[in-house]
Amino acid sequence: MNELRQDANAIIRSALLAAQPDTAVQKALSQLEIVPGGRLLVIALGKAAWQMARAAHDALGAAITQGLVITKYGHSGGEIKGFAVREAGHPVPDSQSFAATKEALDLARGLSSRDTVLLLISGGGSALFEMPLISADELADITRQLLASGADIREMNTIRKRLSAVKGGRFALACQPARVVSIILSDIIGDPLDMIASGPACPDASTTEDARRIAARYGLRLSEAARALLDRETPKELPHVTSLVTGSVGQLCEAAARTAKDLGYRPCVLTASLACQAREAGRFLGAIAQYHQDSPDSLAFIAGGETVVRLQGNGRGGRNQELALAAALELDGLTGVALFSLGSDGTDGPTDAAGGYVDGQTAARLRQAGIDPIAMLDNNDAYPALQAVDGLLMTGPTGTNVNDISVLLIRGREGVK
Amino acid sequence: MNELRQDANAIIRSALLAAQPDTAVQKALSQLEIVPGGRLLVIALGKAAWQMARAAHDALGAAITQGLVITKYGHSGGEIKGFAVREAGHPVPDSQSFAATKEALDLARGLSSRDTVLLLISGGGSALFEMPLISADELADITRQLLASGADIREMNTIRKRLSAVKGGRFALACQPARVVSIILSDIIGDPLDMIASGPACPDASTTEDARRIAARYGLRLSEAARALLDRETPKELPHVTSLVTGSVGQLCEAAARTAKDLGYRPCVLTASLACQAREAGRFLGAIAQYHQDSPDSLAFIAGGETVVRLQGNGRGGRNQELALAAALELDGLTGVALFSLGSDGTDGPTDAAGGYVDGQTAARLRQAGIDPIAMLDNNDAYPALQAVDGLLMTGPTGTNVNDISVLLIRGREGVK
Repeated sequence: MNELRQDANAIIRSALLAAQPDTAVQKALSQLEIVPGGRLLVIALGKAAWQMARAAHDALGAAITQGLVITKYGHSGGEIKGFAVREAGHPVPDSQSFAATKEALDLARGLSSRDTVLLLISGGGSALFEMPLISADELADITRQLLASGADIREMNTIRKRLSAVKGGRFALACQPARVVSIILSDIIGDPLDMIASGPACPDASTTEDARRIAARYGLRLSEAARALLDRETPKELPHVTSLVTGSVGQLCEAAARTAKDLGYRPCVLTASLACQAREAGRFLGAIAQYHQDSPDSLAFIAGGETVVRLQGNGRGGRNQELALAAALELDGLTGVALFSLGSDGTDGPTDAAGGYVDGQTAARLRQAGIDPIAMLDNNDAYPALQAVDGLLMTGPTGTNVNDISVLLIRGREGVK
Repeated sequence: MNELRQDANAIIRSALLAAQPDTAVQKALSQLEIVPGGRLLVIALGKAAWQMARAAHDALGAAITQGLVITKYGHSGGEIKGFAVREAGHPVPDSQSFAATKEALDLARGLSSRDTVLLLISGGGSALFEMPLISADELADITRQLLASGADIREMNTIRKRLSAVKGGRFALACQPARVVSIILSDIIGDPLDMIASGPACPDASTTEDARRIAARYGLRLSEAARALLDRETPKELPHVTSLVTGSVGQLCEAAARTAKDLGYRPCVLTASLACQAREAGRFLGAIAQYHQDSPDSLAFIAGGETVVRLQGNGRGGRNQELALAAALELDGLTGVALFSLGSDGTDGPTDAAGGYVDGQTAARLRQAGIDPIAMLDNNDAYPALQAVDGLLMTGPTGTNVNDISVLLIRGREGVK
């Protein structure tokens, strides 16, 4: 294996490690002062709840008074001392979701200002952590109406937060007067705290006027009870809450940058919110390689985010594979240059690959194999193309899910490496 | 006018100045040692030939033995002392092209090794500088056959260079044993010297085998004379030629970087060969702004090249306007951030604007004006959208044409500016 690919593998390993839920929680706890004068409750919710809770248990041990994990069916790793572990429905909440959420609300009740609630939040929490203020049937009906109406995600959340006892900052409100420390593993580009798990500890920016306007615009059929709930305001300030985002795609990028630096590259994180078309992102990164190919110093350009695939064919692939294959055409013939792109969960599109790796020889190897990369891109068929030239990255499930990372490596001409 | 826009204007002015044909030639001449022991001939060809020749005349004056300008009809600026000025057909060569090229070949004949030919090459030279080795009628016929066959530009050039007395390095060969100094104003991304004006002083990488294979693949109908010419090899080495690219999009980017630095920004030239879709490039640059918006230092990210527009509507706009409008959506709400993109010739698409300027307030202003920027982008209708929010850049004709430049400006939080 050549040196660039070894470097790529080292960067991938360190970035994925930094984005593990337990590593992320450890890091966040080392930055926070959370041992309280009174009780310390830990409530973990979302698909990574179990790993996050175990990391908190390992770090805080006996300081924890009581703990609760609410995660998806099959996502528990076993018992954690002092914690109740509940599994529930996702993506559609079920009676187990409601029951576990009621447990959390019961724990929150009757806390004093000397107590602390440590909330560990990860993706999937919107379904797993829910207690509707109307019947589950009516909630399902309103959700269906909103989906059919063409309402956007912000509008849907404006309505749903008002129909919930815990979303839109209401769970943090229920914890008052205790202090709330919220550690959030972000799986949404830009880390919008009010969106991740529907923001149980995040002030809600939307107003009752917004809610009424949306209900009118889409002609929502609502019960009297539901209509009254739209008029109940959500919290606009939560001064007792401290929030810290950890294990986001930004940290994935920073970890990649640190390892690249250790390997002798000068790192430049371009963005952590890349959201354009995968193929065009690959061309853009490839054009960066063309300019810097003769750089005296070794360079690493890093872009995190989640690109999109413009579907025009029926091939096999994923956004990271498509980005890498498109970049291969721009890198064609360059020496000392490589690019890789992968999904941090180890899955890229409906394939068993995490992403793709290409360098200046990839395009020539494809031609030798009789493969036309442009035709493959036009058919969204990056997987077999990369497979033919040893360009697939296979990590298996990684245990985390904080979007994607793309890295362009350029070996400096002055041999510093 | 706010400070960011003033900075943008200063950067645009300096970049366009650096890319002027006369500035570019001055700069190149200052880097070369060209005063010969013997005669000094200056031959300028292409659409910018007159400006380049005048700059050489101003710099070298009496050292020039004799000069010849071959440019497009209407592109001469008047007499230059010691120069013959010829105008000819473009994009289709005509009898004036052939006659002027014969003059150049006559000048090249009988030079000694103490003499120097200074070639000043700009875009359009392929048509303006031509002397076919077959009849003009057969050349036109073969060109038509190639166009109809689906041959790509490399294949077409492989054939056409062999049918010409001056293309593919043959003019430089005709100048032997004199030294040839070639200053090239590049209008093609990546500065492929064998493509600009068909490379009259550039060794040709294609072989007679390539030429025969192309003729067979497309079933070209060729006279005996033409067929024999395909078997005549083009020069593979031209050790008596020194080439210098000047006034390319790379220099446009470097000039922008220098001015940005003077204004207090830390410049980063990302690329000089951006060629992806305009809208996606705007999203990529906008995502860079999102990551660096809180940077302590002021930053300038610079990308040169020529993006493409994916036509899906029938609105008014150009690739630079589309790039800027797409970026405006990503910059929405950011402070201290602006982006502009413009064509160096002062024309962007079929409009009177050179490009677009947007900042963190542009999206809000569009909403206030009742304009949906996404719908405008979907209709390739960036011009009226930018026009409504004072986002059009109007430079008028600039006198140069070295592709496009896009610049993202981020004002540092530490107020260094």
